[in-house]
Amino acid sequence: MATGQGVYSDAGLFLCFEGGEGAGKSTQAALLNDWLVARGHDVLLTFEPGDTHVGRDIRRIVLDPATGHLADRTEALLYAADKAEHVEKVVAPALAQGTVVITDRYVDSSLAYQGTGRAIDAAELESVLRWATGDLRPHLTVLLDVEPSAGLARFDERDRIEAEGLDFHRRAREGFLALAAANPDHYLVLDARDDRDALAAQIRERVEGLLR
Amino acid sequence: MATGQGVYSDAGLFLCFEGGEGAGKSTQAALLNDWLVARGHDVLLTFEPGDTHVGRDIRRIVLDPATGHLADRTEALLYAADKAEHVEKVVAPALAQGTVVITDRYVDSSLAYQGTGRAIDAAELESVLRWATGDLRPHLTVLLDVEPSAGLARFDERDRIEAEGLDFHRRAREGFLALAAANPDHYLVLDARDDRDALAAQIRERVEGLLR
Repeated sequence: MATGQGVYSDAGLFLCFEGGEGAGKSTQAALLNDWLVARGHDVLLTFEPGDTHVGRDIRRIVLDPATGHLADRTEALLYAADKAEHVEKVVAPALAQGTVVITDRYVDSSLAYQGTGRAIDAAELESVLRWATGDLRPHLTVLLDVEPSAGLARFDERDRIEAEGLDFHRRAREGFLALAAANPDHYLVLDARDDRDALAAQIRERVEGLLR
Repeated sequence: MATGQGVYSDAGLFLCFEGGEGAGKSTQAALLNDWLVARGHDVLLTFEPGDTHVGRDIRRIVLDPATGHLADRTEALLYAADKAEHVEKVVAPALAQGTVVITDRYVDSSLAYQGTGRAIDAAELESVLRWATGDLRPHLTVLLDVEPSAGLARFDERDRIEAEGLDFHRRAREGFLALAAANPDHYLVLDARDDRDALAAQIRERVEGLLR
């Protein structure tokens, strides 16, 4: 179960938004979706965890504060199960039809939060997540980088993961940045504090280069 | 994430019952529990999936016919998540205190049903399950072997797994038998059609040799 170089769709374009809580991922994903649709592309805007039937149950379990403490591996495996279902039932079929798929969070989120944020062996976790997703990778991941204290300030009510301490979220931020640094051809790292429209323009420019 | 030779508790005794549906696992587990308790042992009788807080949610998802089709890897990862929680929160702490732990189903069930019964690479699945459980293994697994058409005849209403076809359950049976054959020192294979009390006596005899 060694981790290979990844599988990239040769039909549809697979785009991913990653980053800490409050970084503006959903906003930028929606703006990109609208721009692509206006240009006539078939686009699927989706997210993890929770954008499948069983994924909704898994999302409730991992994010509901009432769940309480989970063993680190339990949490990681639940996220992996959500990804397995999401890839097989949603992402891969859309890519196979040539659709542009935009996902709000993917494997990097689990690597950052469960790998860097918790105390799990990173290589073992990655091999579970790569297995879950058939090692399917985004052509481009847009990382909206934000200092956790700034991002979390946007929320009044926090879910189970958001409610973790600042140290947890700072380790996760370092995890995201390390993933981007290790594979720069497939990442665009932006400062989430920049102006919304300026960010959107930078993202469009990079995506335009990937469209056929 | 290579699969090693397994981790065996050096404090408590870890016993497992495996086998197809209707093989009488719960009955024999309860009889063994009663015999051990009567002899003054601390015993924990438990089961998979579902004997933790989050495990109850997972059990509902994987067994409820309303869940419908799950991707093979989704199903396997949900069972793995149940096992991770079960080992870390229930099994390992009890073993560390010197308790005799008897579990109704463990890793072999997932290897047999998801590995042999579905179309998942067996070695990859095993490495996920060994990671989930920290490679903790039972000192003895009692396999109650039953021809699926006989075992399933005991049920009027079937859950999501029981409702699979006979071929699925026959492949799972072969999976159980292959696991036992590969590691005979840690298995006791019995014909589930034998008399209940005769089976219990054979199990007690083998367990007696493992007690300090």
